[in-house]
Amino acid sequence: MFQSKLFTKSKKESPADELSRNAQLLIRAGYIYKEMAGAYAFLPLGLRVISKIKSIIADEMDTIGSQEILMTALQRKELWEVTDRWSDENVDVWFKTELKGGQKIGFGWSHEEPISEMMKQYIHSYKDLPLYVYQFQTKFRNELRSKSGILRGREFVMKDMYSYCKDADQHNAFYKSVIDAYMNVFSRVGLSDYVFVTSASGGAFTEFSHEFQAISEAGEDTIYVDRSKKIAINDEIYNEKTIKDLGLNEKDLEKVASIEVGNIFDFGTKKSEQLGLSFTKEDGNSEYVHLGSYGIGVTRLMGTIVEIFNDAKGIIWPDSVAPFAVHMIGLNLDKSDVLAKANDMYEKLQSAGIEVLFDDRDVSAGEKFADSDLIGIPYRVIVSAKTAGKVEVKRRDSSEARMLEVEELMNELKK
Amino acid sequence: MFQSKLFTKSKKESPADELSRNAQLLIRAGYIYKEMAGAYAFLPLGLRVISKIKSIIADEMDTIGSQEILMTALQRKELWEVTDRWSDENVDVWFKTELKGGQKIGFGWSHEEPISEMMKQYIHSYKDLPLYVYQFQTKFRNELRSKSGILRGREFVMKDMYSYCKDADQHNAFYKSVIDAYMNVFSRVGLSDYVFVTSASGGAFTEFSHEFQAISEAGEDTIYVDRSKKIAINDEIYNEKTIKDLGLNEKDLEKVASIEVGNIFDFGTKKSEQLGLSFTKEDGNSEYVHLGSYGIGVTRLMGTIVEIFNDAKGIIWPDSVAPFAVHMIGLNLDKSDVLAKANDMYEKLQSAGIEVLFDDRDVSAGEKFADSDLIGIPYRVIVSAKTAGKVEVKRRDSSEARMLEVEELMNELKK
Repeated sequence: MFQSKLFTKSKKESPADELSRNAQLLIRAGYIYKEMAGAYAFLPLGLRVISKIKSIIADEMDTIGSQEILMTALQRKELWEVTDRWSDENVDVWFKTELKGGQKIGFGWSHEEPISEMMKQYIHSYKDLPLYVYQFQTKFRNELRSKSGILRGREFVMKDMYSYCKDADQHNAFYKSVIDAYMNVFSRVGLSDYVFVTSASGGAFTEFSHEFQAISEAGEDTIYVDRSKKIAINDEIYNEKTIKDLGLNEKDLEKVASIEVGNIFDFGTKKSEQLGLSFTKEDGNSEYVHLGSYGIGVTRLMGTIVEIFNDAKGIIWPDSVAPFAVHMIGLNLDKSDVLAKANDMYEKLQSAGIEVLFDDRDVSAGEKFADSDLIGIPYRVIVSAKTAGKVEVKRRDSSEARMLEVEELMNELKK
Repeated sequence: MFQSKLFTKSKKESPADELSRNAQLLIRAGYIYKEMAGAYAFLPLGLRVISKIKSIIADEMDTIGSQEILMTALQRKELWEVTDRWSDENVDVWFKTELKGGQKIGFGWSHEEPISEMMKQYIHSYKDLPLYVYQFQTKFRNELRSKSGILRGREFVMKDMYSYCKDADQHNAFYKSVIDAYMNVFSRVGLSDYVFVTSASGGAFTEFSHEFQAISEAGEDTIYVDRSKKIAINDEIYNEKTIKDLGLNEKDLEKVASIEVGNIFDFGTKKSEQLGLSFTKEDGNSEYVHLGSYGIGVTRLMGTIVEIFNDAKGIIWPDSVAPFAVHMIGLNLDKSDVLAKANDMYEKLQSAGIEVLFDDRDVSAGEKFADSDLIGIPYRVIVSAKTAGKVEVKRRDSSEARMLEVEELMNELKK
């Protein structure tokens, strides 16, 4: 893409009311726009990052046999009353309103109820199980405070998944595969050194639940992490008994702030009993379906990546989620031979399927370098009168600049 | 995909309260699920169709230089009051609620206001214009009645686009390119013989506005169409003067029911004046930006395709938007050589990038054929003990069955 065509422009200052590092950088670089506290629009650069994160997640969910669907935001009061999750006393984040006819409705903050209700049409026999579905959906939550940029939104994109199993064994097998798939996701988006499977307080059915916590000072949570064993304990259940039950040692545990980037809930058969979701077993008897739900906050994950990977100059995207692979900086483009060389290189990279943002704007070199550091694309490549037959290549996460032939660069990028 | 893994199952009957043909067929075939009147979930097959329609639209929008963004559903009352579109008297489809702090908010039913407000940050000079953005977004409209399936939703996916131009000439040039791009979209989704650019009542700035109307008995609109000239007049402005102004003859015009699948609004500079969106001209003076908005109802388009392409047995998808290219029906799969042949063919097609739904279920041939007709995938291919070295190929829109080698079929599909 030609940067002269990109309608967003970088800003030197972030909005005065924006306290979080992720929103400051993402707004300044033109990735997002703040509509109101907790509700951000995604601009062309931002949408590209979201799209890459979603592709990685979808790939991992497809691999474990989950099928993609898309439920509605609009929710029926009557359905959520069955499971006692309509009242503001029990769920304090509902946005509620009503249809023209007067029926009360809400905007979905999670989707266990409608998906389970729907599954009554499709689950009848043990042969229909196990069954896994997921969606990328915009959730609405009426949060009291929303000052963490895209880490905690009133409107945000979530990947939520729901598993339906015939018994605890079938459920536990899938549960384990989700933990692996989630860790693959976090690893693929560049967070392998930062995300830890974290034991937290269990529900009615299990001693512990599991969260995926990313170490970051911006986090609202506190965990105790054993870096060598790659697991952690949530502060809420941190005590001698838990440490022992999890086979850990207090001396190996480090207290850190963290962001919850994923979670898993085991509902057992409770919700199926409430909603009447049952199936016929091998022996002909009826049984309730075992439900699990699994979430990754897509926009929160993007914010977490920015919180972890940045410096004083701007964002430093991991290669897998960067909006472009290469930020080509054209200098001296008023000279026809330099312009021709730059255009030629742009075409070559595009043809090879390498995504390029080409800064062809008529602004100073200093402004281009500053914008490039702020935007944070992994490879900065300078084409100028000085670079002669070669180009100057510098990775955003390194200070080393190298002079390379275009072909050498392309070989490196294709790896 | 193996049909035995697909969690949806077809139904013989559609819900008693579902009066529209599109919803009846889409529900029976497992494409959509009705959450409430006017709000439908999209199941795996349905999401594949939506995804294909979106890809075609995105391709055409990218081609005319539009940049993709994603605004928020949450809307600030104060912003919409500036343009006098907050009050229920002026806009009667708002879903409204409030934040925890008491601030009134609404859920977006269109996005001229927030996008134009945002553009005040990015548009300063004539050099920043023209500028076009589009999004695929879930809109919320509190419709009084919603009985047309996915043709008129309370929650639905829209592709909306907004153009910002320095003057009427620049605007008109883009306006014309959008008409062409929209007609390309409708042609590519299979509706070239059905969609007509239709003159309707103009706004404050133009004698006529333009709509894109698809001829269908399910439509709520009435148009007079000149099939040879490929244009139409909306009933609301149908009179002698209009017919003459548009250079048409009454005798060539046919009165038909139609569905509005796309529309264009020319706001002139009105909204920019209200919101204070101005730019500096070449001569240094200040001028307000010219705004246009352009919509295609994505889910409505899917419903329109179903309304137009169906028969007593089910849906007949155009190739470009079908959930799969091939519905492979395996019969006699209990015989190991037939099963091996079917699996081999499935692998071959998948490897060639041809999307296949393989009916590997343990149900009768009659049930498989009925489901195949209902689901409506373009190519039905039977692999059975009887087909020997070949396969039996029948298109959904034809009654002719042919015996082909797998390679012959693949060559036909790759065209």
